[in-house]
Amino acid sequence: MTNFVLTIAYDGSRYHGWQRLGGDDMTIQGKLEHVIGEFCGHRVEINGAGRTDAGVHARGQVASVPLQTEASPGELMSYCNRYLPEDIAVVDCAAAPERFHARLNAAAKRYTYRIRTADHPDVFARKFQYAAPGALDLAAMRQAAALLIGKHDFKAFCGNKKMKKSTVREIYSIEIAEENGTLELRYHGTGFLQYMIRILSGTLLEVGQGTRMPDDIPRILASLDRAEAGPTLPARGLTLESVEYK
Amino acid sequence: MTNFVLTIAYDGSRYHGWQRLGGDDMTIQGKLEHVIGEFCGHRVEINGAGRTDAGVHARGQVASVPLQTEASPGELMSYCNRYLPEDIAVVDCAAAPERFHARLNAAAKRYTYRIRTADHPDVFARKFQYAAPGALDLAAMRQAAALLIGKHDFKAFCGNKKMKKSTVREIYSIEIAEENGTLELRYHGTGFLQYMIRILSGTLLEVGQGTRMPDDIPRILASLDRAEAGPTLPARGLTLESVEYK
Repeated sequence: MTNFVLTIAYDGSRYHGWQRLGGDDMTIQGKLEHVIGEFCGHRVEINGAGRTDAGVHARGQVASVPLQTEASPGELMSYCNRYLPEDIAVVDCAAAPERFHARLNAAAKRYTYRIRTADHPDVFARKFQYAAPGALDLAAMRQAAALLIGKHDFKAFCGNKKMKKSTVREIYSIEIAEENGTLELRYHGTGFLQYMIRILSGTLLEVGQGTRMPDDIPRILASLDRAEAGPTLPARGLTLESVEYK
Repeated sequence: MTNFVLTIAYDGSRYHGWQRLGGDDMTIQGKLEHVIGEFCGHRVEINGAGRTDAGVHARGQVASVPLQTEASPGELMSYCNRYLPEDIAVVDCAAAPERFHARLNAAAKRYTYRIRTADHPDVFARKFQYAAPGALDLAAMRQAAALLIGKHDFKAFCGNKKMKKSTVREIYSIEIAEENGTLELRYHGTGFLQYMIRILSGTLLEVGQGTRMPDDIPRILASLDRAEAGPTLPARGLTLESVEYK
């Protein structure tokens, strides 16, 4: 028995998200479990660090999977890249300690939300960006972002209304950078609630467009009310960049 | 009458190339002429600087088109970006002198051929790269490339066997750079014959893989025989980066 840890990249455009749901074969988890199951000859269950939603992409998703095999990480990785569809790739594979669990042991994550602000699409990256043409007030967006940093109850930015567990999370940083007509909102934090980054990005976008003030942020946080925050931006702009472990 | 000059980017994956052929609607030229024709209310013929082949991409294709309209370049550009499919974009538009012709006045062009050398695909750029996993001898490739620089008869690197016009072209430079598992072959020259960059890239790739020596280049050039050069690499790796005018 070896516990493997895989780093996975995917273009999530045509998938129903990370998590396998019943017999749905159009999930990233389902595709990986199928190929890895063929590799080792038994049913497998793979644990992904981030359960990315339908249409969300990943450059550095991390997943762990215990396998009954004598094969090396390199052999598993080449098998996966040979049989996975071309929009999913295993970019790294290693043997991990027996108790390592990609989701439970994750200490922090980095996500980027990309907004196309130019008056024309970037045809090469269009599937990984949300189009919102027009100039944005970056200084105001950075002011608003600064008010989101730290440990807060992010219930107002949670897409799951029936969430019963704690909605407290800690955001370490939000970097805002614009290059060649594309704005990147780079989030680093302990973990994120469902749709949280897409709602944060929708709220920051409204600040950038001037329809909302940076000073609104403390009030939205305190309200704990989803209706007070901005819109949930589309999945296509969101990418899970990396997962960090201690 | 205004003569417009447009800079165009496209993901060529699903198109049959730049040039409109009869009633074929799956060409870049055809898509543009359709939308621009709707804009100005008369049939139009657009002249592209490079007649890119089926599946080839462009970041900076240049095209000129004379139109009977009072509209401004900005109005034409926004109309195009509103009605073109999302894999074609007008990235710049200006009024040009009456006699300007994008193809006949082009002085030089830059093309890049991208080869994925890592053992896994780049899922975000996979449609713009040709996969040839494995280490390459870049020093040998650069030696071979240096022997291609200058004015030569490139008949051995021409895909059109029935070519009756001159096959003499001048290559100013070929840069070879590898970053994050992707190799870029960057060509700058007066103009290129049909399939020329894909055949040059196939030949340089064989040099990198060690199945051909840099010293073979002068012999291949002198042979004027297509059979002496390497394979035509797939269209997906090729991008027209820019067109230069005096």
